[in-house]
Amino acid sequence: MNGDARKPIGVFDSGIGGLTVVHDLVTRLPNEEIVYLGDTARLPYGTKSPETVLRFSRENLAFLKRRNVKIIVVACNTASSVALPKLLEEEHVPLVGVLLPGARAAARATRTKRIGVIGTTATIRSGGYEDALYALDPAIKIWSRACPLFVPLVEEGWHEDEITRLTAERYLESLAGFRADTLVLGCTHYPLIRNVIAEVVGENVTLVDSAHETAAEVERVLEKRDLRNDLDRPGGITVYVTDIPYLFKEVGERFLRREMDRVERIDLETVLVNGSGA
Amino acid sequence: MNGDARKPIGVFDSGIGGLTVVHDLVTRLPNEEIVYLGDTARLPYGTKSPETVLRFSRENLAFLKRRNVKIIVVACNTASSVALPKLLEEEHVPLVGVLLPGARAAARATRTKRIGVIGTTATIRSGGYEDALYALDPAIKIWSRACPLFVPLVEEGWHEDEITRLTAERYLESLAGFRADTLVLGCTHYPLIRNVIAEVVGENVTLVDSAHETAAEVERVLEKRDLRNDLDRPGGITVYVTDIPYLFKEVGERFLRREMDRVERIDLETVLVNGSGA
Repeated sequence: MNGDARKPIGVFDSGIGGLTVVHDLVTRLPNEEIVYLGDTARLPYGTKSPETVLRFSRENLAFLKRRNVKIIVVACNTASSVALPKLLEEEHVPLVGVLLPGARAAARATRTKRIGVIGTTATIRSGGYEDALYALDPAIKIWSRACPLFVPLVEEGWHEDEITRLTAERYLESLAGFRADTLVLGCTHYPLIRNVIAEVVGENVTLVDSAHETAAEVERVLEKRDLRNDLDRPGGITVYVTDIPYLFKEVGERFLRREMDRVERIDLETVLVNGSGA
Repeated sequence: MNGDARKPIGVFDSGIGGLTVVHDLVTRLPNEEIVYLGDTARLPYGTKSPETVLRFSRENLAFLKRRNVKIIVVACNTASSVALPKLLEEEHVPLVGVLLPGARAAARATRTKRIGVIGTTATIRSGGYEDALYALDPAIKIWSRACPLFVPLVEEGWHEDEITRLTAERYLESLAGFRADTLVLGCTHYPLIRNVIAEVVGENVTLVDSAHETAAEVERVLEKRDLRNDLDRPGGITVYVTDIPYLFKEVGERFLRREMDRVERIDLETVLVNGSGA
């Protein structure tokens, strides 16, 4: 076994949405330790510029590396899309984003080679999914749309709701005309309104959940590098956040679909500045 | 004339919503210079904890003080609500928030002494409007509700829209039963969907626009301290933001209802750290 195998898996996201990835990681790799960082003080990333998202991502990465992680999951579509290519050039620790696993699953699922992608404004504008899908198969045609209201609708808990359905209809209006047979849920919040989206797009469209595919990719990378934790007991989850907003635990546990063992609020600036001087 | 009179008015907000206050300031005080700071890299404040909002507000204040302003407008309901009381203890520069002017206007407008207040989650949870209204008149009864979807609906530009109307009906459902005759728009984004809100609440409810009342309060403070700019030419507006998000200029000018002369992106950490070391 690789000597690093007992180190934890690091996961970061702009907020709590990445807990859907943690949920899928725990299901697939139950004896791994997980350290999660949610940058709740500066969320959302989806409406911010690529330079700002890159800066925030570097800081999140630096924090997780101090927690001695063996692999880092960028569980944020915006950061995966606009910051990950640059981070891969700069970093030695293995990095897995949510974008490429989602794109690969979509390319496998489509028969008509017509794929829809929905996400935050920044994810869609970055063209990250388009680039990844074209690289996998240049014959693929893509329809994409930013859906900025979906995140606050999920956070309101309006999951099976008329307003959510009308909003989904508005956003997905032109998808039917495009005749996609596959739709990528390119934001970690979206699986929570999966039912409404499925109803609106109809049963002929396969929904691809990037969070789910990402957990599978993490397992493959750990296997390949001989980094799977061999301890025969369930791993713990430590959740760090840069702010504890109202209802954090309630909303977070809805995403995680279990209780959070431990949540700690940290100040990234203080931690990183003090640490580097030590 | 006070020697400081030709200095600019400083205004900060978590984002671009405070530009509605700038619009009203320019209308009322056309020859004042205005320096605006929108903390767009860390918006929204409305979903964050009071400690975090206070920390961000202190940094915004420090930035504006370096721009040598004569008065600072906290054009953010969340910051006015959760951070301003503490900032007033710490600061010597005159500070005007949006909350107290809005509360005063509502107390003047109501005949039945039954007032509704809507705003972000943090503004409503803080109870800032309640405290201010009770202090003005202990006989006042208050109904309040957080409306987290209104900000993204405004930013989508869905101003006169079925989804916005349904969302407003959901949020304001129980206001009619409460029989309020006055409703405070406790968020600087809300004036842009004023028409839909007015339709939903009906013509018997007076809407109070905090941005408008705040500009009037700034004028009073400047008069009282002999700080009005006596130059007989239109003042300029300089807009600083911590991030330039997509569509910033387009959305910003919708709030400001005029063109932005100059927008500059700054990094608060760098500016404040370098500055303090100099």
